[in-house]
Amino acid sequence: MIKNITGKVDFIESLRGKKATFMLALSNTKTANIDGITQAGIPGKIYLTPTLDSEFLTTGEVRSLEDIAKTPKGVPTPALITRAIHLLNPFGNIELLNLGLEKLPNIEYFKIYDFDIKPSQSINDDANINAQELFQKGVEFGKDYECKDDYIILAESVPSGTTTAKATALALGYDCKNSFSSSFKNVPNEIKETTIQNALKNISPSDDLFSILGKVSDNMIIFNAGFILGLNNKTPLLLAGGTQMACVLLVVNKILEVMQGEINTSNLALATTSWVKNDENSDIKSLLEMCDFKINSYYADFDFSLSSHPALKLYDEGEAKEGVGAGGALVYGLLNGLSQEKITKQIEEFLK
Amino acid sequence: MIKNITGKVDFIESLRGKKATFMLALSNTKTANIDGITQAGIPGKIYLTPTLDSEFLTTGEVRSLEDIAKTPKGVPTPALITRAIHLLNPFGNIELLNLGLEKLPNIEYFKIYDFDIKPSQSINDDANINAQELFQKGVEFGKDYECKDDYIILAESVPSGTTTAKATALALGYDCKNSFSSSFKNVPNEIKETTIQNALKNISPSDDLFSILGKVSDNMIIFNAGFILGLNNKTPLLLAGGTQMACVLLVVNKILEVMQGEINTSNLALATTSWVKNDENSDIKSLLEMCDFKINSYYADFDFSLSSHPALKLYDEGEAKEGVGAGGALVYGLLNGLSQEKITKQIEEFLK
Repeated sequence: MIKNITGKVDFIESLRGKKATFMLALSNTKTANIDGITQAGIPGKIYLTPTLDSEFLTTGEVRSLEDIAKTPKGVPTPALITRAIHLLNPFGNIELLNLGLEKLPNIEYFKIYDFDIKPSQSINDDANINAQELFQKGVEFGKDYECKDDYIILAESVPSGTTTAKATALALGYDCKNSFSSSFKNVPNEIKETTIQNALKNISPSDDLFSILGKVSDNMIIFNAGFILGLNNKTPLLLAGGTQMACVLLVVNKILEVMQGEINTSNLALATTSWVKNDENSDIKSLLEMCDFKINSYYADFDFSLSSHPALKLYDEGEAKEGVGAGGALVYGLLNGLSQEKITKQIEEFLK
Repeated sequence: MIKNITGKVDFIESLRGKKATFMLALSNTKTANIDGITQAGIPGKIYLTPTLDSEFLTTGEVRSLEDIAKTPKGVPTPALITRAIHLLNPFGNIELLNLGLEKLPNIEYFKIYDFDIKPSQSINDDANINAQELFQKGVEFGKDYECKDDYIILAESVPSGTTTAKATALALGYDCKNSFSSSFKNVPNEIKETTIQNALKNISPSDDLFSILGKVSDNMIIFNAGFILGLNNKTPLLLAGGTQMACVLLVVNKILEVMQGEINTSNLALATTSWVKNDENSDIKSLLEMCDFKINSYYADFDFSLSSHPALKLYDEGEAKEGVGAGGALVYGLLNGLSQEKITKQIEEFLK
């Protein structure tokens, strides 16, 4: 079942049976190197997570390391969920956006868009992103982009991305202290909050919007805000993610406010997992409602209640929650007739 | 599961979820009339096999004979496998190539390309093919061909085709005595080998490449070598077959050697069945590795272990193995979310 967070089901129902291009935005921020800030990967090798996620999603193989990224607790990457959907009901195309990767995935034949973007620095000091230029790259890409399928599912893999997202939204003045999610069940509030406070301290009163973003945000958020505005509603776009994707919308909202612009969001929506939707430590609905525009948002009513695999059960206990577009991929699977049972079995296959 | 024989999975993974045109190359060689040389059909009516295969694949009906072609042991044609895939996850188009049929299939509406090609004679004497002209027809067809889907699956139905393929590869000087497959489990080595030896005896030292092919090969092999070179990598092409399709590549390789040409094979691959891959009497991998160019090749990890039908069990025992693009069709099905269980059930339906 696909359920609403905000808006009505009509948009997502109109995509039932249609083919999607799955677009995966990949980037590294050195914020992820802060000890204990994220569990999206193997300690010491966190920077490889987007590389490994994209290898596994496209080829079913993990090539840049011997095993698929797992958290220290043994929670497997949500890339398993997205890959399972791709096996059972394939995306029309998988395309990768290199928004500043430390290491390119070791794959052939799949489209990897390159924008000459470097990994960003830690927001503890200053992310040091040329945000205006990066935003403009996103706008141009959106303007030029021609979808080969019926719609786009835009996902991300950015370790420590919930931290940079929260810092971004707070820096832009949104009242959202308790609205942001984390890949942890027991959110490591102290490390995360200290990092965010350090980031906010770097902002000076003279900073304009893009100067602020360049200090406290990440490449994925800034580029995708541009992409959404450049695409300009011409193709249905499903943002596949949780609070990070909500933050992209908050950035879009702020840019429109500053530029006194408007956006038609009739072809734009967000889809996430039930784990994000039901997370007690965050509130994606309130984030979406901070936007001045209306936005349809959904979650896949999918969990691992049909599985007895301990690594998957951790999802139901609140670990990992989202990433690599797992929620949007599940929605795509459900829109195309897949059952929870079938999806669960396929994911369990990977863990055998 | 789709597994590698040579190369990497990237090429085939990039076709996941995409639509294919299924192109079936049909021809007769009088070599098939040699008593006991093939079990691809009904004794005395072997020449009808490609006609019946194409009727069944396109319409689900066998029209030019009362029953679908079976071997004397009761092994049903692999066309059942290809048809099952077409029912469960249809090809975008099915197109037939008449490369010298004794009898045209009795069908309407489906595209049958005609090239004014006659069935070839027995290689026991001299196949009597104008190989240069036939090759050129293939080149022209490849140059002009515009695929209406994302990629092409090129398959064949040529009774006694493994015999002409082996004769061809040996005549071209490849060291491949034990590398060729057969539709039999217990390969009728004596008849087959005598025929091949007779074919090789007809070659004189003054024969050039095309003269040799004209004496010992078959229309499918020569035409498709031209087709591959004419298509020139512009459309992804999956050769769906076993050692016969490998032989097409060996001919391409020899032509390039003689003409000092080169080929880009980034969009070219071969897909076959697990029965060919695991055949103890042949070695498709070694054949592919005799080419000077790299080629990705795959097999569908599919067998009839989920079936208890005795006629299908014969496949797992090594009969039939491949034909009518069964391996490539299975790969196409697996790339589009079909399960072994679902495919098996559909094939069993035909035998009720």
